[in-house]
Amino acid sequence: MDRLSEPVRVNGRDYARPRHPVVVVCVDGCEPDYITQAMQAGVAPFLKSMLERGSSRIGDCVVPSFTNPNNLSIVTGVPPSVHGISGNYFLDVASGKEVMMNDPSYLRAPTLLAAFAQAGAKVAVVTAKDKLRAMLGHGLSGICFSAEKAGQATLADSGIDDVPALVGKPVPSVYSADLSEFVFAAGAKLMQTRRPDLMYLSTTDYVQHKCAPGTPEANAFYAMMDGYLAQLDAAGAIIGLTADHGMSPKTDAAGRPQVIYLQAELDRLLGADAARVILPITDPYVVHHGALGSFATVYLPQAAVARAQAAIEALPGIDLVLTREDAARRFELPPDRIGDLVVVADHLTVLGTHPSLHDLSGLTVPLRSHGGISEQKVPLLFNRPLRDVPTSRRLRNFDVFDLALNHVNPPPS
Amino acid sequence: MDRLSEPVRVNGRDYARPRHPVVVVCVDGCEPDYITQAMQAGVAPFLKSMLERGSSRIGDCVVPSFTNPNNLSIVTGVPPSVHGISGNYFLDVASGKEVMMNDPSYLRAPTLLAAFAQAGAKVAVVTAKDKLRAMLGHGLSGICFSAEKAGQATLADSGIDDVPALVGKPVPSVYSADLSEFVFAAGAKLMQTRRPDLMYLSTTDYVQHKCAPGTPEANAFYAMMDGYLAQLDAAGAIIGLTADHGMSPKTDAAGRPQVIYLQAELDRLLGADAARVILPITDPYVVHHGALGSFATVYLPQAAVARAQAAIEALPGIDLVLTREDAARRFELPPDRIGDLVVVADHLTVLGTHPSLHDLSGLTVPLRSHGGISEQKVPLLFNRPLRDVPTSRRLRNFDVFDLALNHVNPPPS
Repeated sequence: MDRLSEPVRVNGRDYARPRHPVVVVCVDGCEPDYITQAMQAGVAPFLKSMLERGSSRIGDCVVPSFTNPNNLSIVTGVPPSVHGISGNYFLDVASGKEVMMNDPSYLRAPTLLAAFAQAGAKVAVVTAKDKLRAMLGHGLSGICFSAEKAGQATLADSGIDDVPALVGKPVPSVYSADLSEFVFAAGAKLMQTRRPDLMYLSTTDYVQHKCAPGTPEANAFYAMMDGYLAQLDAAGAIIGLTADHGMSPKTDAAGRPQVIYLQAELDRLLGADAARVILPITDPYVVHHGALGSFATVYLPQAAVARAQAAIEALPGIDLVLTREDAARRFELPPDRIGDLVVVADHLTVLGTHPSLHDLSGLTVPLRSHGGISEQKVPLLFNRPLRDVPTSRRLRNFDVFDLALNHVNPPPS
Repeated sequence: MDRLSEPVRVNGRDYARPRHPVVVVCVDGCEPDYITQAMQAGVAPFLKSMLERGSSRIGDCVVPSFTNPNNLSIVTGVPPSVHGISGNYFLDVASGKEVMMNDPSYLRAPTLLAAFAQAGAKVAVVTAKDKLRAMLGHGLSGICFSAEKAGQATLADSGIDDVPALVGKPVPSVYSADLSEFVFAAGAKLMQTRRPDLMYLSTTDYVQHKCAPGTPEANAFYAMMDGYLAQLDAAGAIIGLTADHGMSPKTDAAGRPQVIYLQAELDRLLGADAARVILPITDPYVVHHGALGSFATVYLPQAAVARAQAAIEALPGIDLVLTREDAARRFELPPDRIGDLVVVADHLTVLGTHPSLHDLSGLTVPLRSHGGISEQKVPLLFNRPLRDVPTSRRLRNFDVFDLALNHVNPPPS
């Protein structure tokens, strides 16, 4: 076997080299029903035809069902216990500071994107928000830019320049459906002009945080996506589509957010600030969800752990409360980057710290969010049939590169 | 206190007598988001105004999240461990026969409807499908009929005759949105003409099995409901609205049903027919869901229980597998009316017996169903403020009569 046909080994898994371009799409917040309802409404004709000849499965994402841990799992092929990214945000115990988990220094495993580039493949990455760019592009010799800062991409730092001219669209607002459209449009143009061997496109869940599956705005988003996927398919790409997490309404029937303010509960129980609640959904863009998700982690004195666990478990709206060890085992998380307790809320409930610390004025429509087990199910869609994937295999969203590279029959060449 | 002002005690709970008519509505399959989305689309103006001055909470229904156990819990105020109705369908171990649980002889507790009638209140019950009529009306001196057989109601058996003439509508098809509309229309007419003290209206989930929240057909259903609720409110009724269970898509993103055929799995594991799988969703009306729900119970030899439990737990799509004792404790079920194992599937998965035993030809749209923990959250809505209901109280759908009778401030009289 010559070097160019050898599989690429990353983080303990072997990936076959692509004989045709492979595009993996991570549709942020894509609860599977968004696609079902768009197809049902007749606005996603390409997806409908693609799934008649391709493959559709359901996979489990990483819990916490947040953007950063899942995007990093997808591009490394391993859970957070290996790659280290446990949230969008965490408490750095060494410094005592709460920080964004946006920096590659937090990454404990190489990406398969970097490994493929290293092995000679042409690799391109487009992400919607800039927060992911540095980590997705870590160690990567290739193209990597965000839609948010597409205007600032240079050959030196992003492997490409003049992106808005290439895409033929202005740089969109970070709070818009256009931000994701720019990702797809850029992906389609890159395929036409550069034909990367491996491409990763990652969108943002602005629309999914606002609109339920099957509503006109959601259908319009998926109709847009459908058109670009058709272009990628027509260019001969093998497409694997998944999501970082699902999405649920987090309100009562009247549309009011259902929030458990954990810091306030624990202050009442243990005294002010005896416990420290961390919300790993937090990122620089919280207008559309007010930093409210269904997963939290709590640092507190060892003597108070059992008491706090029992008290939180008893609150209506809580799904489960696990100790660090149990959570690390069950969700495959790095124990040193989660608190003494992990708290998961149910499918209609989110967790906050204290009412005064959440600005809900940006919630112009009923809150929809994620983070819990209830948002763990995500689509795994391919424009080709999968082979040798038994139904007994529990699929993860971070198997998408394995499936697209190792289990898809390439198109006739 | 004179007799007419004494509370009515049923199944260990005291209920205040209504000073104004009280109407409890059970909207079959009403995932809370149906109401949120209808309000959001602007088609439910009465509900919107009602919730601005009334109350909205989320409650837990009974698991299995099926129609019969929950309707009976609502009208008895207690879980199935007390009232005995563990499903729509069960294995009568004494006879070895699988039978519908439609007969009042299976009921182990009186209904509060019968108790109020006994205590002198005027009581009326309207249910969509006839399957519930006998149990809801058990021991009841009052009005009780189904929309399905409204044309056959007589004074002798239903406490009313000439129902279609009263309602001004023909008897609808059992598979239609009209069946539920007939229930609401009959309720509004009964309020105008007979002014019952206590009324229970129970619809059918034909629409919810077919249409996602926020889609045009679902919104049309809730717009219809909104109009009749406005009539009941205008007549001075205290309204309490809840659901027997929620509703989830049970498909992959392509809209294909995600089914685990448990009997087939267990036949492979233990030999043909060593285990017997019972699907308590089964009822005489299975066209719209093919008897596929997210809850099953399994009878099998004691020596095989642990092995079967481990094997089923390992299947992708399974939420949890409990022994009879654990399931009876956790879900408050009668242990003699469930199998040796209870199996719950996840929010996108349903359980079947064997592919040859499910007719899916009636599924003209992507399957939506219920039965699991993922469909346990239901609305609890009132057209008046609730008092003395702390947020720490875990509310159940079968608290709805307690809330409407004991915790609503009556309107000024």
